[in-house]
Amino acid sequence: MDKLTGDEIVRLFLALATILVAARVLGEVARRLAQPVVLGEILAGILLGPTVLGSIAPSFKEFLFPSNGPLALSQHAFRTLAIALFLLVAGMEVELSTIRKRGRAALSVGFMGIALPFVLGFAAARYAPDLLGARSGVSPETFALFFATALSISALPVIAKTLMDLHIYKSDFGMTVIAAAVFDDLIGWLVFAVILGQISYGKGGTEHLPIGLTIAVTAGFAVLMLTAVRWLIHRTLPWILAHASFPTGVIGFALALALVGAAFTEFIGIHAIFGAFLVGVALGDSAHLRERTRATITEFVSSMFAPLFFGSIGLSVNFITNFDPLLCGFVLAIACLGKVVGCGLGARAAKMNWRESWAVGFGMNARGAMEIILGLLALQYGLIQEPMFVALVVMALATSMMSGPIVQWLLHRKRPRRIEHFLHSRTFVPKLRASDRKSAIDELCQTLARASGLDYARISTAVWEREQVTATGIGNGLAVPHARVDGLRHPYIAMGLSDQGVDFDAPDGQPARIVFVILTPPNDNGVQLEILADIGKTFVQPDVRDRALKLKSFTELLALLRTEPVPA
Amino acid sequence: MDKLTGDEIVRLFLALATILVAARVLGEVARRLAQPVVLGEILAGILLGPTVLGSIAPSFKEFLFPSNGPLALSQHAFRTLAIALFLLVAGMEVELSTIRKRGRAALSVGFMGIALPFVLGFAAARYAPDLLGARSGVSPETFALFFATALSISALPVIAKTLMDLHIYKSDFGMTVIAAAVFDDLIGWLVFAVILGQISYGKGGTEHLPIGLTIAVTAGFAVLMLTAVRWLIHRTLPWILAHASFPTGVIGFALALALVGAAFTEFIGIHAIFGAFLVGVALGDSAHLRERTRATITEFVSSMFAPLFFGSIGLSVNFITNFDPLLCGFVLAIACLGKVVGCGLGARAAKMNWRESWAVGFGMNARGAMEIILGLLALQYGLIQEPMFVALVVMALATSMMSGPIVQWLLHRKRPRRIEHFLHSRTFVPKLRASDRKSAIDELCQTLARASGLDYARISTAVWEREQVTATGIGNGLAVPHARVDGLRHPYIAMGLSDQGVDFDAPDGQPARIVFVILTPPNDNGVQLEILADIGKTFVQPDVRDRALKLKSFTELLALLRTEPVPA
Repeated sequence: MDKLTGDEIVRLFLALATILVAARVLGEVARRLAQPVVLGEILAGILLGPTVLGSIAPSFKEFLFPSNGPLALSQHAFRTLAIALFLLVAGMEVELSTIRKRGRAALSVGFMGIALPFVLGFAAARYAPDLLGARSGVSPETFALFFATALSISALPVIAKTLMDLHIYKSDFGMTVIAAAVFDDLIGWLVFAVILGQISYGKGGTEHLPIGLTIAVTAGFAVLMLTAVRWLIHRTLPWILAHASFPTGVIGFALALALVGAAFTEFIGIHAIFGAFLVGVALGDSAHLRERTRATITEFVSSMFAPLFFGSIGLSVNFITNFDPLLCGFVLAIACLGKVVGCGLGARAAKMNWRESWAVGFGMNARGAMEIILGLLALQYGLIQEPMFVALVVMALATSMMSGPIVQWLLHRKRPRRIEHFLHSRTFVPKLRASDRKSAIDELCQTLARASGLDYARISTAVWEREQVTATGIGNGLAVPHARVDGLRHPYIAMGLSDQGVDFDAPDGQPARIVFVILTPPNDNGVQLEILADIGKTFVQPDVRDRALKLKSFTELLALLRTEPVPA
Repeated sequence: MDKLTGDEIVRLFLALATILVAARVLGEVARRLAQPVVLGEILAGILLGPTVLGSIAPSFKEFLFPSNGPLALSQHAFRTLAIALFLLVAGMEVELSTIRKRGRAALSVGFMGIALPFVLGFAAARYAPDLLGARSGVSPETFALFFATALSISALPVIAKTLMDLHIYKSDFGMTVIAAAVFDDLIGWLVFAVILGQISYGKGGTEHLPIGLTIAVTAGFAVLMLTAVRWLIHRTLPWILAHASFPTGVIGFALALALVGAAFTEFIGIHAIFGAFLVGVALGDSAHLRERTRATITEFVSSMFAPLFFGSIGLSVNFITNFDPLLCGFVLAIACLGKVVGCGLGARAAKMNWRESWAVGFGMNARGAMEIILGLLALQYGLIQEPMFVALVVMALATSMMSGPIVQWLLHRKRPRRIEHFLHSRTFVPKLRASDRKSAIDELCQTLARASGLDYARISTAVWEREQVTATGIGNGLAVPHARVDGLRHPYIAMGLSDQGVDFDAPDGQPARIVFVILTPPNDNGVQLEILADIGKTFVQPDVRDRALKLKSFTELLALLRTEPVPA
């Protein structure tokens, strides 16, 4: 039997580990800069591919990511599986009920969000094919159709993430945007599936399948998946939950279904991902799919398969030699123009005010992952050339990067402030020495003064004066002495843990074992409440308090705060 | 670049889906018969491989699971990754602290559990090499060493599962067995790694690495992983939790580490799985690894990679033509003899009574997954031939199958009885018509009488008489009218849901919306309490009650009961 040799297994594992680590690290850097994680993941691939590693250490690049041979084949197999599973998860995020609920407004935004970019893209490709680098072997109509579709599609995951970060996902505004994006994605992928069907039949040497038939088969499959199969899945899930092991049974069912769906769409000539995506939509729609199961699939796929796929994008293309600034600028400009104006007008037509309408436009403008997948497929199928692929990737990343900040600015939304943003290693005291209220406050104020250069006497007096008005023990072993202090530009927080406990006159009579000193600027009314609410919600959970009392370092404290979901 | 064609992608996805589904279905059948799931998974591979599918539809078998070509290579790559990840999870289940806690008894059982099988196996291989089918190309010492090791190893996952099923995992007995099994596994894999190191060097055409050096490198690596690297991981985890996305950051870290560990051990000539296993042990030992993260990794790997691996075992060997009853019987006999007697004597030496000692022996006798992995590797490295591989698989499965029932019988343990065991579709009433206590009881008793043939008048009278002594409303909208009824061989339960609620005189004054009628045999005191406790623990959770009230069918009820973890 054909097998990988020991040497190839070593290289395969090292290559997978390298992509995972590089994609994760750069993804985290992107996140730190308030950018989408996928940006960093793609950058990792660019660094590991021909663009950078391939040009400074070509033999090392070939060692890990060879272009030919058994290893190249195996890596391609992994990538193909990875993208199918990523699309399964992306599909699971779609909520069909959302589309129904916000139907009219979403339809208006969604339709205009497809129509204008499509028309602009089609026109550009027809009248300036050379500028866009159309290939001679591809029919101008097909190329124009592809380019128009590429501009029309949205990036559901990026859009959803942006809205969640701003805490407006579940608002009417958020649901309208999401519903419109779902609508655009379904239509966009459908059109793209038709294009692929056209090309792959052409490439196979056989006659083109009549375009009507391709549309019929694709649309028929989509409708079948979203009606009969969706219903069937909804009926089957309780049976699986009742009779198979949990959760392995239902996860196995989801994975097998995605693979079969992917195999089917690949078989009829449209790409595997379309089938996996539709399986995801159908599956995710069932109320019988437990939250916990959904989370397990999403978390594992996002940890392993998503970085593996996005980290591989840069491996096949040189992003420097194929970078054409004019092309990139042109693509970016008409992409933004079409989507922002189209969706903005659609939102206006649905009676939103101008500010909200523009926010909808910029929210929908994010292309992110989906765009890049589309570009990669087009490149593989010979529909476009490398420079166009690079331009699409640049456009996808640029639109995703600008989306969050602009929406935030337009809607005057602020990201909610949490304690962790104002805690520092130097203001965390794992062992308070103080045994009474006054000296506990003094001890933490000293720490704050030392770490930040604030005047010790001034802040400790302010906190103590406030404390004497009403004691700040809030029960459950927590105390939150605080004060507004003139001249602060942002809040300052110190946190201390006390073994023996300090009496802060709490309603439940318990001594405080976790003490926060909170200083806020006097002109920012909201921030004090936000921080107090965050402390309350986080530490109301008994096991969080228990674990907090065992903390030994600031890093452990951050780990606790960032891994404990705050109940809504 | 070398790539899979569209046709190959279709076949790859179909093959993966086929293994997943077949392994899952047969795994569930095995579980239903109170057998280890892995038994069914392996059987699935035997059905899909040359043994069955290959002999009735060879071209279809080659279509899905070809022996050569790009597809065979890709499938081998998946299998290799799958087993590494499975070993990562198996390693994470090991609790080093357990070994420390139950140190002396575990050491006694563990040592004897290795020594006796090892001596027996070594002697058998030296004095009856022909019976065991030793190959002429392999040195008799190496073969004897392998066979001795194969008999010594245990199957931690199967043993853990057996103990959990009997609810004695956390008892002193359970912890001793687990600790001894961990000890045996570590030693067993260490010895096996040394054997593999010997062979692979031999196969590479180079000189054998001196056996002393192989032992030193292997042991050194193991010690390093379990001390310095373990410490380093423990220190790194809080940092990752604090600074990376959760849980993708920590899952990515775990996977990358496992891949690097696997690549390293593969590189030094012992198999990849050894490195992945040790990474799992080191990682799983850290208290900083959140339960939720552990569960996500374990659940996904068990759903996808474990069935993929175990379902592939049967693909390469014909289990009928290579079945040698004499060899199988011989291997099974000395395997059982060595392990049961060895561990039994070890337990006696640690002052356990005879009955418990035999239970330890049969508990440790389960070989399961580990044995089979060992056998597969030995087959791949040319150390053994197909008939011996088949004998090892048969021995592993047979010992795993007998383990649970015999331990249960020796310790007089009963599996706890839950409501779901006694509920049937015909005794579940989604809409009770009754509006008062008496008629609610009558309605459910009628259902019971119809479904089971019990005498309606007799049971409804018994329940109503008991009800009049004290009302059985227990609050939270639950009522549990019950009675002991002469002549029953097991409990009978009916469950009804009431829209308007029925007054059962509950302490909190709430009408009952979920009503159970419970009939138990008069001579079984325990069962009534077990069932009442199960109802209380399950339905004390508000969201379980909410979801119960929305149930439409018995299948949905089972799905609810089987996916809701009962709080301990």
